[in-house]
Amino acid sequence: MRSILIIGAGKSTSSLVRFLLSESQSQNFKLIIADKNKKAAQSLAADHERASALALDIFQASEREKAIQNADIIISMLPARFHIEVAKDCVRFNKNMVTASYVSKEMEALDQEVKQKGLTFMNEIGVDPGVDHMSAMQVIDRIRSKGGKMLLFESFTGGLVAPESDDNLWNYKFTWNPRNVVVAGQGGAAEFIQEGQYKYIPYQRLFRRTEFLQIPKYGRFEGLANRNSLAYRSIYGLEDIPTLYRGTLRRVGFSKAWNVFVQLGMTDDTYSMQNTEEMSYRSFVNSFLPYSPTDSVELKLRLSLKIDQDDLIWDKLVELDIFNPDKKICINDATPAQALQKILEEKWTLKPEDKDMIVMYHKFGFELEGKQKQIDSTMVSVGEDQTYTAMAKTVGLPVGIATLKILNGEITKPGVLRPIHPEIYNPILKALEDYDIRFEESEREYKGYNPDQLL
Amino acid sequence: MRSILIIGAGKSTSSLVRFLLSESQSQNFKLIIADKNKKAAQSLAADHERASALALDIFQASEREKAIQNADIIISMLPARFHIEVAKDCVRFNKNMVTASYVSKEMEALDQEVKQKGLTFMNEIGVDPGVDHMSAMQVIDRIRSKGGKMLLFESFTGGLVAPESDDNLWNYKFTWNPRNVVVAGQGGAAEFIQEGQYKYIPYQRLFRRTEFLQIPKYGRFEGLANRNSLAYRSIYGLEDIPTLYRGTLRRVGFSKAWNVFVQLGMTDDTYSMQNTEEMSYRSFVNSFLPYSPTDSVELKLRLSLKIDQDDLIWDKLVELDIFNPDKKICINDATPAQALQKILEEKWTLKPEDKDMIVMYHKFGFELEGKQKQIDSTMVSVGEDQTYTAMAKTVGLPVGIATLKILNGEITKPGVLRPIHPEIYNPILKALEDYDIRFEESEREYKGYNPDQLL
Repeated sequence: MRSILIIGAGKSTSSLVRFLLSESQSQNFKLIIADKNKKAAQSLAADHERASALALDIFQASEREKAIQNADIIISMLPARFHIEVAKDCVRFNKNMVTASYVSKEMEALDQEVKQKGLTFMNEIGVDPGVDHMSAMQVIDRIRSKGGKMLLFESFTGGLVAPESDDNLWNYKFTWNPRNVVVAGQGGAAEFIQEGQYKYIPYQRLFRRTEFLQIPKYGRFEGLANRNSLAYRSIYGLEDIPTLYRGTLRRVGFSKAWNVFVQLGMTDDTYSMQNTEEMSYRSFVNSFLPYSPTDSVELKLRLSLKIDQDDLIWDKLVELDIFNPDKKICINDATPAQALQKILEEKWTLKPEDKDMIVMYHKFGFELEGKQKQIDSTMVSVGEDQTYTAMAKTVGLPVGIATLKILNGEITKPGVLRPIHPEIYNPILKALEDYDIRFEESEREYKGYNPDQLL
Repeated sequence: MRSILIIGAGKSTSSLVRFLLSESQSQNFKLIIADKNKKAAQSLAADHERASALALDIFQASEREKAIQNADIIISMLPARFHIEVAKDCVRFNKNMVTASYVSKEMEALDQEVKQKGLTFMNEIGVDPGVDHMSAMQVIDRIRSKGGKMLLFESFTGGLVAPESDDNLWNYKFTWNPRNVVVAGQGGAAEFIQEGQYKYIPYQRLFRRTEFLQIPKYGRFEGLANRNSLAYRSIYGLEDIPTLYRGTLRRVGFSKAWNVFVQLGMTDDTYSMQNTEEMSYRSFVNSFLPYSPTDSVELKLRLSLKIDQDDLIWDKLVELDIFNPDKKICINDATPAQALQKILEEKWTLKPEDKDMIVMYHKFGFELEGKQKQIDSTMVSVGEDQTYTAMAKTVGLPVGIATLKILNGEITKPGVLRPIHPEIYNPILKALEDYDIRFEESEREYKGYNPDQLL
């Protein structure tokens, strides 16, 4: 019987496993779920007759090689830096492979060999990267096939809390790795291009340069720039496009309040603070404010960041209990970012009944037959519960669908790939619609970037 | 005849060479000035009968070893990272050595061997580090010798333009390496302690958290935090001091205006911008501001940083001509910091007749015989011209004086040293007074840190 090997049984694998097991009978394959922690693999396999669990340490070469040799196709759900070990074996043993991660330099370097062997290594086939690539390229290729010329491409994705579980002032909870949220945007200026002009936003301004977006039935969101928009020019074949901007979505007002943490220095992950084991939340905040023999931490923070008494930002800060003198950080040698994460996790952790939500928004500006037009394309996916989250679903389903299509010979394009080719994204997007991952499009006149002249 | 070898004939060597040559007859020694660029060395030697120039590439081991073997004491005025090559030879050939640079880990590692051989490797004997160590330790040791207990130590140094040459709105010109000024404060939060509380200032707040200082006859200055204040606790033996803060001096108002560049991202030296060769000053500024089809760069900058029309910051920016659409950056692949430096150098370069100024300010708070007192100690040194600058003088004279005192056996303490010991700083500070490098002290009641409750 044909077999699919999943390496890595982390939290994001739930929907992938459920999807594959639901297809295992009709499509006649078995599923091997491998993880260093066999219990995690067993829990996912859940006594399904087509599933088995395997204890696998990917750094034990012989174990790894054996597992890969025995499978027909391999899905690596490992942390991105570990894919390459699996990939090298897949080349060696002539196995196709699927990952949801960005193509690394090491992975890219295998392209020639993978092509020569006629193998398919499908990468960036989760949600972001993944669904974003497919849904964007489908519209871009359609516009170009009609003879249209691309003028603008903006694309935003956000992992948020679903409206029915949205019960705090930030309209935000952690639906993914909290650390990534706390340090988001650090490590270099965001670079993009608007109407032919290169633009740069440093970290200290990132959360003050947002743009608003509206999604029918879901209301308003704000987008803030990602660091690497320009890389998409070559990937999407948009070398000469005047406006290209990729960003992250939050609910309106999040960024302005988050900027308080950025400005105070609370998101810094590069140094350890003194005495954080015993430090109260209040002392943590006070560490970033001037000493005063009399004035309160509250007043110093308000003055320092010029927060008026009726500014909603203030209520957001108070809601997080950051001025509490009794609660302790309780982490030894914590960086500011670690201490902040501790404080946030107390308030922003999903409750058992909470649902998450993935939101995606593409804007395409183009000229066709002498007219300038704009297509707005949006997708919202809400999770079922805390196991089958929107994140797990929008990552796992495209991975699973791509895997079956490769296994069944419906996708045969060789090489180290992204899902940016019609023969790949068309059938996968079609299949995703059955699982309610679908894009709503609207068309209107294109008036250039920033037609409302908002700064 | 005894001989002193100076390795490195850079700009900061002028006063050192003049001082040593003026002493060479009476103290009976000759001076060898070595540099990779022999012309630079010759120009300093200037046909003086006791001076000779030597072409020396310090990476040619045999050349270097020969030069060091032939001298009685070696002064390394090389860039700090190159001292270690010289130091290792000095250990090997039993030569004393003097540098104005911070003790590196590699240098520190030689301490045991240097001590065993009875050699003196005097480091940090320029102005900052150097004169700051000596003048601070002299007061601290005096307070402690009377039984006083240190409560506060704050220390500020600035390299500025002299009042008679101060003719721009920033009250600032480059008197030292411009690059260091543009990137100053980057690379991590400033960390210090105030009334027993650890405080951290991230780069994005650094230029908004200054404190004011007044120096008789010279007016007001502002101090902004250095990154490494806490390192001085162990160096100065101030482990338990409640307030320790080291900073950099500027004229009042500089930092608030400089913060515009920081906030916009113009001081970033970590990435190259696009098309900087052909980029105008105006486009450079516009790169950090949102796109608008109509609004001016000026308006966007004002709005972005909320600069009122009557704010002096605006005049400072205009004075730099940063909105000029015709002047070009003319640097290929410039980082923002390189482009900004180019713009600033046009306005902030010293004119031939301009003089620089070194300003130092120490505050000591202490308890003695049940009373809390404060000593303020200040030093201002003004340059003669652009060769014998205040910077060259305050670096070169302590280096030269220390060198002669070691050569003459007046300073014999062995080891890899800083000038923090009375037998070193007392005679050197005394000698510096003859060259008008002297500290003015005033004493008053100590009222704690920030007694005026300014935030």
